[in-house]
Amino acid sequence: MNKIISISREFGSGGRELGKRLADNLGFAYYDKEIVQEIANRSELSLHYVNDIIEHRPSFSFPIHTGASFVMTDSIWNPTQTIYSAQCEILREMAAKSDCVVVGRCSDYILRDFKPLKIFVYAEMEHKIARCREKKPEETRTDRQMARMIKNIDKHRAKYYEFFTAHRWGNKRLYDICINTSHISVKDAAAVLAEYVHLWDPSSE
Amino acid sequence: MNKIISISREFGSGGRELGKRLADNLGFAYYDKEIVQEIANRSELSLHYVNDIIEHRPSFSFPIHTGASFVMTDSIWNPTQTIYSAQCEILREMAAKSDCVVVGRCSDYILRDFKPLKIFVYAEMEHKIARCREKKPEETRTDRQMARMIKNIDKHRAKYYEFFTAHRWGNKRLYDICINTSHISVKDAAAVLAEYVHLWDPSSE
Repeated sequence: MNKIISISREFGSGGRELGKRLADNLGFAYYDKEIVQEIANRSELSLHYVNDIIEHRPSFSFPIHTGASFVMTDSIWNPTQTIYSAQCEILREMAAKSDCVVVGRCSDYILRDFKPLKIFVYAEMEHKIARCREKKPEETRTDRQMARMIKNIDKHRAKYYEFFTAHRWGNKRLYDICINTSHISVKDAAAVLAEYVHLWDPSSE
Repeated sequence: MNKIISISREFGSGGRELGKRLADNLGFAYYDKEIVQEIANRSELSLHYVNDIIEHRPSFSFPIHTGASFVMTDSIWNPTQTIYSAQCEILREMAAKSDCVVVGRCSDYILRDFKPLKIFVYAEMEHKIARCREKKPEETRTDRQMARMIKNIDKHRAKYYEFFTAHRWGNKRLYDICINTSHISVKDAAAVLAEYVHLWDPSSE
């Protein structure tokens, strides 16, 4: 049985870097933006549009927010549903192919039959802001504006996740291990998680 | 600076055994029931009474439960307060003495100036029940009764913690790492956490 590692992460927590380091450390395949690219290829939607639907503006929220009665018309439903279906197909193909690390994309839920190791990465707001500034030194927003932006992105992630899984994103009970990157470097966090993976036998469960 | 590890745990999650294994693995002192014994010695209250107050029947809840109006009389307040004060004193002495692992007792909060590594150990209910049965094969309660008992113990732990810290027990943001022992042995979980401790430098924070 392949070892599948699913990483869910708060924006700014370093979860993406952690996933990449963990994959490198273990010699596993690493999938993140590759998934969005592949969804775009298969669905014939633009890369930008797919990314927008997944991360920032899942279209199922539109009728709820406007207060209009919710009618599941094709035009509202299809883009999000098409993208999700493609995502399921691609993730399952990837998981069947080899050991891998997948970041985000509801992968903990979609790949549940592959018994993935489920990791949640989080951090305190001040550390998330500092990490964002480090990655983008030209950032001009204030800390307050940054905090609002970070919360918004995570709100959308949570909404997308909850729509398709009916579970509460970030609830520790959904994960095997939750790691706070406020007081540990991402490099060290990856080493701790690699130790978990070395000891772990998914076929024994 | 001494390395202080504070373990909070759900009943039946194996957190106590994990703490012991981690301390053995690292060569650290281990404190759990020793604390209750020492509180009893210093407060001149019986061991049984101290344990009862801490784990099962914090007396601050008494007037709320009976529906009587809450009056902080000496007789209601003092036992719980006396025990908590002794607990603070003892924990700080222990933390000042050497590297150590402390299980429960609001130690993550009481020892915050020592910058402890804060761990939360949890598990799915079926795994907690199975662990309890393994430890006590003569147990006659049904699974449903066991689940109720486990929930009750944790409810008291949460209440005690929240009364003295004003924080929500088990909220992942309070901890550096949360580990689910449903799909990993306690021995392996201890090895993963030992890796964290080896990499961690509390004085650098």
